[in-house]
Amino acid sequence: MNYKLVIRSLGVILLIEAAAMAPSLLVSLLTGDGQWAALVWSMALLCATGFPAWRLSRPEENNLRAREGFLTVALAWILMSFFGALPFVFSGMIPSLTDAFFETVSGFTTTGATVLTVFEGQPKGIMFWRSFTHWVGGMGVLVLSLIFLPKISGRTSHLVRAESPGPTLSKIVPKMSDTAKILYLVYTVLTLLQFVCLLLTGLSPYDAAIHALGTAGTGGFSNYGGSVGEMNNPAAEAVITVFMLVFSVNLALYFRIIRGEWREAIRSEELRWFLCIVAAVMLLVTLSIWPEYGNFFTALRHGSFQVASIVSTSGFATADFNLWTPVAKILLLLLMFCGACVGSTGGGLKISRVAMLVKYARREVRHVFQPRKVQVIRFEGKGVDDALLSQTAIYFFVYMAITLLGALLVSLEGSFDLETNLTAAITCANNVGPGFGAVGPMGNFSGYSMFSKLVLSMLMLAGRLEFYPILVLFSPVIWRKN
Amino acid sequence: MNYKLVIRSLGVILLIEAAAMAPSLLVSLLTGDGQWAALVWSMALLCATGFPAWRLSRPEENNLRAREGFLTVALAWILMSFFGALPFVFSGMIPSLTDAFFETVSGFTTTGATVLTVFEGQPKGIMFWRSFTHWVGGMGVLVLSLIFLPKISGRTSHLVRAESPGPTLSKIVPKMSDTAKILYLVYTVLTLLQFVCLLLTGLSPYDAAIHALGTAGTGGFSNYGGSVGEMNNPAAEAVITVFMLVFSVNLALYFRIIRGEWREAIRSEELRWFLCIVAAVMLLVTLSIWPEYGNFFTALRHGSFQVASIVSTSGFATADFNLWTPVAKILLLLLMFCGACVGSTGGGLKISRVAMLVKYARREVRHVFQPRKVQVIRFEGKGVDDALLSQTAIYFFVYMAITLLGALLVSLEGSFDLETNLTAAITCANNVGPGFGAVGPMGNFSGYSMFSKLVLSMLMLAGRLEFYPILVLFSPVIWRKN
Repeated sequence: MNYKLVIRSLGVILLIEAAAMAPSLLVSLLTGDGQWAALVWSMALLCATGFPAWRLSRPEENNLRAREGFLTVALAWILMSFFGALPFVFSGMIPSLTDAFFETVSGFTTTGATVLTVFEGQPKGIMFWRSFTHWVGGMGVLVLSLIFLPKISGRTSHLVRAESPGPTLSKIVPKMSDTAKILYLVYTVLTLLQFVCLLLTGLSPYDAAIHALGTAGTGGFSNYGGSVGEMNNPAAEAVITVFMLVFSVNLALYFRIIRGEWREAIRSEELRWFLCIVAAVMLLVTLSIWPEYGNFFTALRHGSFQVASIVSTSGFATADFNLWTPVAKILLLLLMFCGACVGSTGGGLKISRVAMLVKYARREVRHVFQPRKVQVIRFEGKGVDDALLSQTAIYFFVYMAITLLGALLVSLEGSFDLETNLTAAITCANNVGPGFGAVGPMGNFSGYSMFSKLVLSMLMLAGRLEFYPILVLFSPVIWRKN
Repeated sequence: MNYKLVIRSLGVILLIEAAAMAPSLLVSLLTGDGQWAALVWSMALLCATGFPAWRLSRPEENNLRAREGFLTVALAWILMSFFGALPFVFSGMIPSLTDAFFETVSGFTTTGATVLTVFEGQPKGIMFWRSFTHWVGGMGVLVLSLIFLPKISGRTSHLVRAESPGPTLSKIVPKMSDTAKILYLVYTVLTLLQFVCLLLTGLSPYDAAIHALGTAGTGGFSNYGGSVGEMNNPAAEAVITVFMLVFSVNLALYFRIIRGEWREAIRSEELRWFLCIVAAVMLLVTLSIWPEYGNFFTALRHGSFQVASIVSTSGFATADFNLWTPVAKILLLLLMFCGACVGSTGGGLKISRVAMLVKYARREVRHVFQPRKVQVIRFEGKGVDDALLSQTAIYFFVYMAITLLGALLVSLEGSFDLETNLTAAITCANNVGPGFGAVGPMGNFSGYSMFSKLVLSMLMLAGRLEFYPILVLFSPVIWRKN
């Protein structure tokens, strides 16, 4: 293990995090919330740790192997969350370090699960940082580091592979750092577009910024206790609904559209699966809650918002879906597992995986009565090889097993019922945000013990990084000297 | 598709079912419950359908291919459950045919989920038939047919493969029909042994027979509304606890012990996984419910009984575990998924599969940072090839997907909450019996609509036959002419 290279990479990432706090500091100063010092101290600590790690750790060779890549990613996310929690602690907004760590992990992993119980009167700069973590975490911090430091190591693909969601990540242009630049540009432009749309619906610039950042990262932090619903602005809800879906789609597709390849873009098989699932579930949920609201359009408004929110793994809410019909609730639960498209900022199992697993399962059933027939599975127009199918299938097991293990661990304290514990683990592992029961859209995670909050934090990290990087940390081999 | 062969095989199976009703008729006559006519009429209908199907359908060739095997198994179980429901309807014990079908499916699949709300004063012969379906279904009806009709077709292995649980079924002696005979002999002897033990604890012969049949098939039907707990006989509870575990183990291991190969038997890797899981969960559950019962030994008595009941997928109960701590409940939920050993009468995912999936997952994690290292997975002392690992992983997906789909379908009616619907689907797909909420150990399934009962019946059948045979029914290819 090339520890020096790992430490050096971590140093760079901490410096980037310090820079990422600058916009929040600006908001703090502009709004005069009186908490700029909390941000400055946090930035100072980040620099004081990151700079020596970067400058003093001089690795003999810059070749980043898979093991270093995965270790770097796992440690980077944990460290970032620790340092990212400092503004919350220093400002007194979230005095407990465990709580603040949970909140920051929830931010970076774009989960949106919160321990905040009071929303009014919180310092605006710190609340902005809370939402900004969504934006940074959505695309990936290491992807960001590639833009600034394309030469940190000879092979950076391991970093991106470990951090980026989805079974297959293809470079859209030959150089990885150029790919990262293009994707971040698309991401920024779309975020700004949503910000402008939200301003046009009458939101204040601050509210618009908070919700644009939360939507772009598919995170779900709001500056209102009642989430988006509390603003009672149907136009803003519609804008957020549309953009939650926009950010659930592979961002590379927008790049293709810009390049004029819109035919290829809309022919994407994953996109079609995604749109079919979303349309079907929106319709079913709307029909199911129609009697409750007494009006089809009100049901459609809340139904489509909540479906978009869950499938994109954002977690914003306009209604307490905890009180909806059993079938609406279970549809939302299934959507939590499903998640968004590969290459988007959303979490969950990912539509591509679901599609491949469904196709693989169909082949297995057919194989039962046609054992001699060779059947090739095609996805996105190409044959999928058996190794990838097998990897996807065992990934599904790992994902379910870790989620259930998490649910078991948070049950130990005995504070909440099965529904709360189970959906808390599911919503965290899939980076959605709200669950059912006590952690429903109008509830929060503050009732859990410190131990459970740490378990849920690890689940969020594991889910965001797609399990293997975090599991690697628990493997003794990785800690062995070469 | 060789339909004539399928029909002929189905005819034989119906005749066997008629014969299987004989012991219940005897009980009816001996106890004078006045319902012998219900059984005689059912037997007559079975013969009237089975005999012509057997004699008049003359297939050109007797070669049973995989597709005929799977179709036969799926249809056989559905038909058997339909005809097996007749005694309940004719006797008036369960007047609705849907309810009676649900009860019989639950019996044959050894689930033990019931729609009965009144237990006292029911006709003893019919109640005996209810429990006898567990005994017949536990080992498999088609396995039974092999004993009587080893020459029904040239290749019977497809039948056994489709009906017998577990990823690998090995013949213990060269001929399949001999294997079936030996296994049924072991099964019968163990059942009788339990019957005698239960008599010694002071149970009446009738109670002892009912509970021995339910334990042997790992079914869980009791003739008491409060299940085993209502008898308030700690010695009988201990006997049932032990035998539930006995019947969760691969029956072939007992044959090995009889042949003097006990060293090989206890060296079985699956057995060791099973015993470790059972011991660990028993301890955890006991510790978790200790404060509730105030006494360690009472907690151990109820904890070990319920753990044995769930892991064996029997579903007997001595306590309302619905009221236990969250951690005890989630442990039981995880055990439901886990299930018993391959080659036992128990359901669930099976310990072998769990063990293989865990090993495969560990290899995948290691593969992440040691991508070039070839790592062979060993189970039961032999290398497991990648095709089997991949099949096991996709089986897990199919199993979860069908279970969740079932939960979605039973949610449509809106009668019950998420916990009830989810655990109803899980307990049926794993052939356990009780779930949580309204379908807890002291509840029943009578509150569900006809549609939901049919969905749950299909889930039980799908779970018992390990999904593919039932899914084959929904595949258009199977219904196409050659």
